[in-house]
Amino acid sequence: MSQSLDVAVIGATGTVGETLVQILEERDFPVANLHLLASSESAGQSVPFRGKNVRVREVDEFDFAKARLVFFAAGPAVTLSFAPRATAAGCTVIDLSGALPAPQVVPEANAEVLSGLGRPLQVGSPSASAAALAVALAPLKGLLEIRQVSLTACLAMSTQGREAVSELARQTTELLNMRPLEPRVFDRQVAFNLLAQVGKPDARGHVPLEKRLVNELRELLQAPLLKISVTCVQAPVFFGDSYSVSLQAAADVDLQAVNAALEAAEGIELVDGDDYPTAVGDAVGQDVVYVGRVRHGVDDPAQLNLWLTTDNVRKGAALNAVQLAELLIKDPL
Amino acid sequence: MSQSLDVAVIGATGTVGETLVQILEERDFPVANLHLLASSESAGQSVPFRGKNVRVREVDEFDFAKARLVFFAAGPAVTLSFAPRATAAGCTVIDLSGALPAPQVVPEANAEVLSGLGRPLQVGSPSASAAALAVALAPLKGLLEIRQVSLTACLAMSTQGREAVSELARQTTELLNMRPLEPRVFDRQVAFNLLAQVGKPDARGHVPLEKRLVNELRELLQAPLLKISVTCVQAPVFFGDSYSVSLQAAADVDLQAVNAALEAAEGIELVDGDDYPTAVGDAVGQDVVYVGRVRHGVDDPAQLNLWLTTDNVRKGAALNAVQLAELLIKDPL
Repeated sequence: MSQSLDVAVIGATGTVGETLVQILEERDFPVANLHLLASSESAGQSVPFRGKNVRVREVDEFDFAKARLVFFAAGPAVTLSFAPRATAAGCTVIDLSGALPAPQVVPEANAEVLSGLGRPLQVGSPSASAAALAVALAPLKGLLEIRQVSLTACLAMSTQGREAVSELARQTTELLNMRPLEPRVFDRQVAFNLLAQVGKPDARGHVPLEKRLVNELRELLQAPLLKISVTCVQAPVFFGDSYSVSLQAAADVDLQAVNAALEAAEGIELVDGDDYPTAVGDAVGQDVVYVGRVRHGVDDPAQLNLWLTTDNVRKGAALNAVQLAELLIKDPL
Repeated sequence: MSQSLDVAVIGATGTVGETLVQILEERDFPVANLHLLASSESAGQSVPFRGKNVRVREVDEFDFAKARLVFFAAGPAVTLSFAPRATAAGCTVIDLSGALPAPQVVPEANAEVLSGLGRPLQVGSPSASAAALAVALAPLKGLLEIRQVSLTACLAMSTQGREAVSELARQTTELLNMRPLEPRVFDRQVAFNLLAQVGKPDARGHVPLEKRLVNELRELLQAPLLKISVTCVQAPVFFGDSYSVSLQAAADVDLQAVNAALEAAEGIELVDGDDYPTAVGDAVGQDVVYVGRVRHGVDDPAQLNLWLTTDNVRKGAALNAVQLAELLIKDPL
């Protein structure tokens, strides 16, 4: 990595934005000046970086000419408003919101896409779910012809932000103390329960998160016609997403080869034998995707079943965006 | 229903056994004498029935000639030891343990099997998961040619008995009070976490629960070659199982016809529109299987996705067994 550069983070006070700043520091990303930005409600707070508290300013008043690299870790509306300004100022934009029509990239799955892009760069860092799944499935692409993927994603509260994390703690405490529950953030009890629908469904019953996941995963795996069924479930877990995955292949799956490919792949930790990974016990705070329960179908050797778990705030969200930036700065921005 | 008959319940002190006794009372099953039986450790306790406390006796000392109908709600080992005695004494046996090589029956799915059986009858009441899925999928058999079923079952603590229910409460309290967690019952933290493996896997990575579910579901749907992928997950939920289900059909699925069939079916409550059912909010304490999120795949009209939730102790376990008994006593036992 060459010279230092000026970096801006939009949405710096959110769960992902704050973790992103932390990862820039952890990985010693060559930041010259760091500009932390947020909407007017969150401006004025501060976020620690390299031993100092950096004050968060209003994105509306920011002069994008002051940055070379801009991370958009805010919501889609903010990204759509301000990314054109960043691009007009010549900044490289890494979008974590899914709002821009930029190619989605996960270094372990489709890094080669980056070399074909025009300047100024706009690159998408996909949803945490798509990133985790792409990391786990990309190494299998050469080994099996995947006919179909079935996914159930059990998402942590932190995918919905800090209020959701607090709400699980609050609901749990109320219930254990036998007090009547008045749900907030969610429209019903989420403690000791599972919510089968994360977000508002369209007329066909699909929620935005599920549609985004299907589209991004197809793009990351370069398999535009892959049949993917997906259900995103809100689980009463604070941090760490888990995925139950079943692949149907065109022919019998060689499990030894699958295990060897997963073992050799970047960004994966394989858990085998009688053990299996969990969100709390393994994934949280870690940068890799944990893969376990690698097995055939009960009576179907052309079926491959997996269990994945990952830190949704790091890998997939904040970490993936920083990894993209690391690849991009190998060439001059 | 005709004359009253003498009934025995083996495993009367377990979660399922106790609920079974309660359901016999609720549904006014024509019990003359009720014999409650258990292993020597649990004998001596009592269970309420029709306003009296019925003392639980040792199964080892029971004279099966005193009963006409015997429910085996204990573990497989107990069933294998004592069912031959019950059958030798001419009793009708309803096995909830899965241990006997008896046909598995769910009234809503394959009641017709009962009429072909020899005497003395041995009938299996399948696992709660297989029963719930059979109730939901049987009405669809005539509508679509199902090529494949993908299932992720999120099981409640109560599927593992009372100790598991208490352990979730204990772990949750410890964690909320910031005390170090020493797991019991499970080998790790289950509170605010998901365990991807329920039971001990065989050399191929399958756990008994998953193998039983695949076999029973194929039997109940009379589809011996159906491809079924299944992952059973232990969720931090006290009561009520949830299922994420994806079916791949041979042709485009007519959602209107699916909804109409589910709406008309026995034992199903359909939740539609923007709403969806949950274990805590809907299923617990209820006798029906709740079905929601009925939708195609995101881009695949030959895919049908569903979310089911059910009271695992009632429908599937205790209730299904009593429903079987109700059918059986229409003919003389």
